[in-house]
Amino acid sequence: MKLPVREAPIAVPGFLFAGVACGLKASGKPDLALIVSDVPAVVAGVVTRNRVKAAPVQLVIPRLARGKAQAVLINSGNANACTGAAGMKVARAACRQLADGLGIAEDAVLPCSTGKIGVVLPAAPMTRGIAVAMDALDDGGFWRAARAIMTTDAFPKVAQRTVRVGGTTVTIAGMAKGAGMIAPDMATLLVTVVTDARVAAPVLRAAVRGAVATSFNAISVDGDCSTNDTVIMVANGVAGNAPFAAGSTDGRRFAAAVAALMAELADMVVADGEGATKRASITVVGARTAEQARRAARSIAQSQLVKTALFGGDPNWGRIACAAGYAGVPLVAEKLSVAIGGVQVLARGVPAAASVVKQAAKIMRATAFPITVDLATGGRGTATVTTSDLTPAYVKFNSAYST
Amino acid sequence: MKLPVREAPIAVPGFLFAGVACGLKASGKPDLALIVSDVPAVVAGVVTRNRVKAAPVQLVIPRLARGKAQAVLINSGNANACTGAAGMKVARAACRQLADGLGIAEDAVLPCSTGKIGVVLPAAPMTRGIAVAMDALDDGGFWRAARAIMTTDAFPKVAQRTVRVGGTTVTIAGMAKGAGMIAPDMATLLVTVVTDARVAAPVLRAAVRGAVATSFNAISVDGDCSTNDTVIMVANGVAGNAPFAAGSTDGRRFAAAVAALMAELADMVVADGEGATKRASITVVGARTAEQARRAARSIAQSQLVKTALFGGDPNWGRIACAAGYAGVPLVAEKLSVAIGGVQVLARGVPAAASVVKQAAKIMRATAFPITVDLATGGRGTATVTTSDLTPAYVKFNSAYST
Repeated sequence: MKLPVREAPIAVPGFLFAGVACGLKASGKPDLALIVSDVPAVVAGVVTRNRVKAAPVQLVIPRLARGKAQAVLINSGNANACTGAAGMKVARAACRQLADGLGIAEDAVLPCSTGKIGVVLPAAPMTRGIAVAMDALDDGGFWRAARAIMTTDAFPKVAQRTVRVGGTTVTIAGMAKGAGMIAPDMATLLVTVVTDARVAAPVLRAAVRGAVATSFNAISVDGDCSTNDTVIMVANGVAGNAPFAAGSTDGRRFAAAVAALMAELADMVVADGEGATKRASITVVGARTAEQARRAARSIAQSQLVKTALFGGDPNWGRIACAAGYAGVPLVAEKLSVAIGGVQVLARGVPAAASVVKQAAKIMRATAFPITVDLATGGRGTATVTTSDLTPAYVKFNSAYST
Repeated sequence: MKLPVREAPIAVPGFLFAGVACGLKASGKPDLALIVSDVPAVVAGVVTRNRVKAAPVQLVIPRLARGKAQAVLINSGNANACTGAAGMKVARAACRQLADGLGIAEDAVLPCSTGKIGVVLPAAPMTRGIAVAMDALDDGGFWRAARAIMTTDAFPKVAQRTVRVGGTTVTIAGMAKGAGMIAPDMATLLVTVVTDARVAAPVLRAAVRGAVATSFNAISVDGDCSTNDTVIMVANGVAGNAPFAAGSTDGRRFAAAVAALMAELADMVVADGEGATKRASITVVGARTAEQARRAARSIAQSQLVKTALFGGDPNWGRIACAAGYAGVPLVAEKLSVAIGGVQVLARGVPAAASVVKQAAKIMRATAFPITVDLATGGRGTATVTTSDLTPAYVKFNSAYST
């Protein structure tokens, strides 16, 4: 599935970008991206919970915890995961080279990698690539950087927002890569969001965590994530806005803008799911808690039977009820409701007439539609998870392609 | 994938069997099976943990808890799940009719259903079918019953053992249906095992629980199971053997025979996975506990990326390590080992040479092979889960077929 992409120019004050080809990809396509702030910046982020963490992820964790950095270095074509001391050595050397070139501290560089697991990142292309990328740094290079982080993505994923905080309009722009969200255990998700806003570290951290919860974690990354998943946000303060607290009107407005931007990127990731032809947002209501709603929604979103039914355009509420049933959360089985695109195919345990089911089938011909499931516990827990369909093309692709 | 099936006659003293067509399946194929003991029997079993339980499952639970029954009534073509009071009424009426016809108590009938969810089991075909099946009851009807419980199965699944306990040779024979074990959340598994052994209820219960843990639960049914999954074992005592305790030599021999029989049936279920071309048994060693080993093995066995790599014959240990990593159990990421068919493709964190990987790829051309993963915690926890490959045929089938 392709989303229309208008390459509207994206620029964020005080940031330079580059995207170059250094030879990690056999295709010769761009495979090295650089995002650099003119000045030291505040950073926040989250990484994979996978116990097997790639070398760059191991480096990034303490640097994100510090909350300060100035550059993001991303390569595609090689995940540098399960590569032991040799992989760590190359990752460190790359950070050092970039830091030296930019005249910043080594731990002000946040490295990310994506690509095949188990192959040590080759040093020579990285060395050459970093040198070329530093020369190519440009305030108009956002789209080039976004292209250079792609792996199996069909299109680059970028989004931009402006929001007024602390008396000033600031810009927020983000890029994401990841095209495997059909399967929750699928290929790496990398996201970098930059803003010229001046934001205190705890405020940025809260905004990022909140936004990830309702965006990338609502497409089933969290917990089932790859060895390399990384979401980074960099705020360089160049806008010079007045400070604002997390709970203030401005703080909430800023957090909402970050959340909306990440949700937009997350939606593109699902839309670009390998082999996907459509996507559905599964909203669970009537759970006892939000966490239980999330578990039920994920169970439905990850069910191969539900995902193949989406592909087939089959309003198969039985498969949906079954997947909710094995999520391990309380529900009232005799009183479940399921609606597809607003059409109630199961109403408090009573199946709809064939004519109504036909209506739902019609809705499922669209490329995107909502599914709502009421667990009928009387609770107010609710959550949404977006998923794509499982198609023969997905299987063909992933059995031929070695990640 | 088809397993060779030799229809060796199966008979178990004191049991009669029938398999007839009553019109639940549009195809006109057999869809009603009856298994009846001449005398009241001891029973034990396990049912789905899904919170959404089909009407027959709700009826079976207290009857299995009682530990006594005399007949098993199984229909295919309709799951009678999510069918509320109407579905329960038909299920009860079917049990009553059979009980009246056989002159036994209504709760001595154990009902099972499998097929489409959300459609009330039609009463008329059931009434007619039960009458015809009672007439057809025969001590040579085992295979006919095994055929009548099939849904998407490519072949009937039966197994038989004899074992000497309490001074007498007893027979154990089982039938299973289920062809969707490619996906853990897939179509219903129904199993009925009968024996002429005289077994005390607690001894039978222990044997069944132990056997299910290493057979049907080791192909990922448990926890992710359908609305209808049911495993029943019926022991009528007609062999007249001397009593034996669970911990005795005879008790262990009996339990081992039940476990071996269920493992054989479980293996056939995986082999008949929808669209499957091969299967792999994933053994995890070096976990801290057996439960943690089981979680890691299931995580690997259920990974879409691992399953597509199996289909592609790709010795992609990176996907295996990744799936172990997100299982949420302790492991030493830098010291993982992965062997495919005995070929070490990752040895204590060190990837094998290309020539070795090529050897592993050769092994993966077989229709069945083992994969061993060492989590390197130094613990002795171990577990095995068998899985099949994920193929384009699976997706095509499940997007066209409404379960």
